[in-house]
Amino acid sequence: MTQGPIEQSLSARARALEASKIREVAEAGMKLGGVVPLWFGEGAWPTNPRIVDAAVTALRAGNHMYQPNNGALALREEICRYSNALFGADLRKEQITVTPSGMQGLMLAAQILTSPGDRVVAIDPSWPNIIGAFRAMGAEIATLPLTVEAGKWALDMDALLDLLTPQTRVFVINSPNNPTGWAMGAADQKIVLEHCRKHGIWVVADDVYNRLYRHGKTAPSFLSIAAPEERLISINSFSKCWSMTGWRLGWMVAPAEMEAKLGQLTEFNTSCTAGFVQDAGIVALRDGEGEVDSLTQKIQTGYQIAAERLSSFDRVTFVEPDGAFYLFFKVAGMDDSLQAAHDILQKTKVGLAPGVAFGPQGEGYLRLCYAQPEDVLTEAFDRLAPALSG
Amino acid sequence: MTQGPIEQSLSARARALEASKIREVAEAGMKLGGVVPLWFGEGAWPTNPRIVDAAVTALRAGNHMYQPNNGALALREEICRYSNALFGADLRKEQITVTPSGMQGLMLAAQILTSPGDRVVAIDPSWPNIIGAFRAMGAEIATLPLTVEAGKWALDMDALLDLLTPQTRVFVINSPNNPTGWAMGAADQKIVLEHCRKHGIWVVADDVYNRLYRHGKTAPSFLSIAAPEERLISINSFSKCWSMTGWRLGWMVAPAEMEAKLGQLTEFNTSCTAGFVQDAGIVALRDGEGEVDSLTQKIQTGYQIAAERLSSFDRVTFVEPDGAFYLFFKVAGMDDSLQAAHDILQKTKVGLAPGVAFGPQGEGYLRLCYAQPEDVLTEAFDRLAPALSG
Repeated sequence: MTQGPIEQSLSARARALEASKIREVAEAGMKLGGVVPLWFGEGAWPTNPRIVDAAVTALRAGNHMYQPNNGALALREEICRYSNALFGADLRKEQITVTPSGMQGLMLAAQILTSPGDRVVAIDPSWPNIIGAFRAMGAEIATLPLTVEAGKWALDMDALLDLLTPQTRVFVINSPNNPTGWAMGAADQKIVLEHCRKHGIWVVADDVYNRLYRHGKTAPSFLSIAAPEERLISINSFSKCWSMTGWRLGWMVAPAEMEAKLGQLTEFNTSCTAGFVQDAGIVALRDGEGEVDSLTQKIQTGYQIAAERLSSFDRVTFVEPDGAFYLFFKVAGMDDSLQAAHDILQKTKVGLAPGVAFGPQGEGYLRLCYAQPEDVLTEAFDRLAPALSG
Repeated sequence: MTQGPIEQSLSARARALEASKIREVAEAGMKLGGVVPLWFGEGAWPTNPRIVDAAVTALRAGNHMYQPNNGALALREEICRYSNALFGADLRKEQITVTPSGMQGLMLAAQILTSPGDRVVAIDPSWPNIIGAFRAMGAEIATLPLTVEAGKWALDMDALLDLLTPQTRVFVINSPNNPTGWAMGAADQKIVLEHCRKHGIWVVADDVYNRLYRHGKTAPSFLSIAAPEERLISINSFSKCWSMTGWRLGWMVAPAEMEAKLGQLTEFNTSCTAGFVQDAGIVALRDGEGEVDSLTQKIQTGYQIAAERLSSFDRVTFVEPDGAFYLFFKVAGMDDSLQAAHDILQKTKVGLAPGVAFGPQGEGYLRLCYAQPEDVLTEAFDRLAPALSG
């Protein structure tokens, strides 16, 4: 981008922003038209009508007024009930802050924990917005590569503990990981938490895919092992597991002692989350287990189709994911994933995300979201076949 | 607040946050119960059913998916149409970014314009969140007092231009001003804009009260005099003028060259604004002029009642506001407005905002929001009489 006089006059953080490579491909695709879009992390299905009804009822009843900064009491309590049952935790409502998206939870975590120059450790590859939010708040990011060892994604725990120096402010981890689907096991979480406790390092866990776990009801969570005043912030969202991407609703779990500061920061960011959206969230948590089950079944079907079709291409290899709803696959001989995503888009009209968008370790990979109905996936792979074969 | 080990481990920006004194009084009041609450900037009336219907229709139609970072195209175009008609401007959709609240617009302005240590000039008194957002992004704030001269609020323009040194990054102004109701005139806006243009200073105009103007259809706006690529960001909101506080919907007008960066920053803050909320915004702008008229009439009635009753107290003086929906009144002999607001709350069960919450210049004042029905205001003043008399 040319730096005109306006561009030069922006803040350092704004000038340092890099355009999303996922969006770069998606925008080219939207101009092209007729594309099967598998680039974003969004399922194909609308929100369950019971959840929609709750919002409609609240809107009709006049729930149009300001809400408390940290969220409506009833939703905070429902989040406690849900989390405590799921993770065997003992959360209190003072630990919950409702946020207008999981993304805003990450931004609030970045704001409340990091000062300019602070060291933050993250995993490569990761959802770029995680690093984006911390970097915008002035953090210096150090990354640890996730690598494929013996057919599985693996994190070198010794290397991780070495990176998590006493000078580190935050270790930020999304598990199940976007884009790889890798999830950190409970034993490794315990080692990380004990190490971070010893050195005063904060753990920020982006848990938005924790219900989209292919080996059980939920992925292992730091919430199951953390003490109430642990330096842990868990971020969650209604977007993925309840098909509510466009609603912008999420939550944070943090030490109760942070309630007031999180409220004050929320005041200066968005002030509060819409009340009728929060009412929908209450119904999602209270009556939505069937919705989560239904979604996990649908994406399991999507996984089976996508995995079978991908396996048929000799040039393609991938690791079976533990969770989330992506296949992150390597294409032999492809060393420029951004160019490849553009080429595939133009040749096949299938929209994929370039692996390099998720960090240097993602180069050579492409990501597709398989949370789509069978006919969409079948069409996508029929189109992709010429580009990925031979 | 005692600084426990968690508090000490937060970011510098978080540790520096000060609790809102408005909220301090309000929280005491909510515990008390039975209070007539005039402390917040929120009208008593729910959103117009036509606007509600638009959201319900969108929800039922399945508008549940991610939206573009900068906002839905249809709303951005509607905002251009609305603004161009109102301000005689020539805005293009590339200049509009939809935000989940005016507050988020201010936060994005702070993020995109200010680096830590940058000088920002603001007016004292002002809505505390304006300074709060810029300070959280590391800005150093210099303020200019708004003073009462010959029975009117007045800004010393020479002093303002002196404060707006070439080293200044941003001049942030909310006009009509919360809490005083003062509005900057068109001639002064022109002087400010020319001065800022000369020195490369950004103007951030918080215009959320511009339709609640007591001398015409809209308060003077920088949008009427700015060139398209001017260093101007205008922030607006559906909260006040369309009674949509709890919906969290606003917008920014900025140079078109900033579209991509504002989209990228939005991606790292909230990613987007809910689509069904944006659909409601389209209807508010397209069909909502009657709603704005109706509200301005209701608050004019509220003003007349509040002004008449306040005038009956010998100890009370106030300046007739140009706009917004507050009376900011001085009480002779009161030099601790926070204590006074607490005392009045306990004695009369009427909730007022302490003037000092808006800056040192607000000390000695109390703020009430008169956007209330007649019976509520009558009850409030009946209760207040013993505390404000004699």
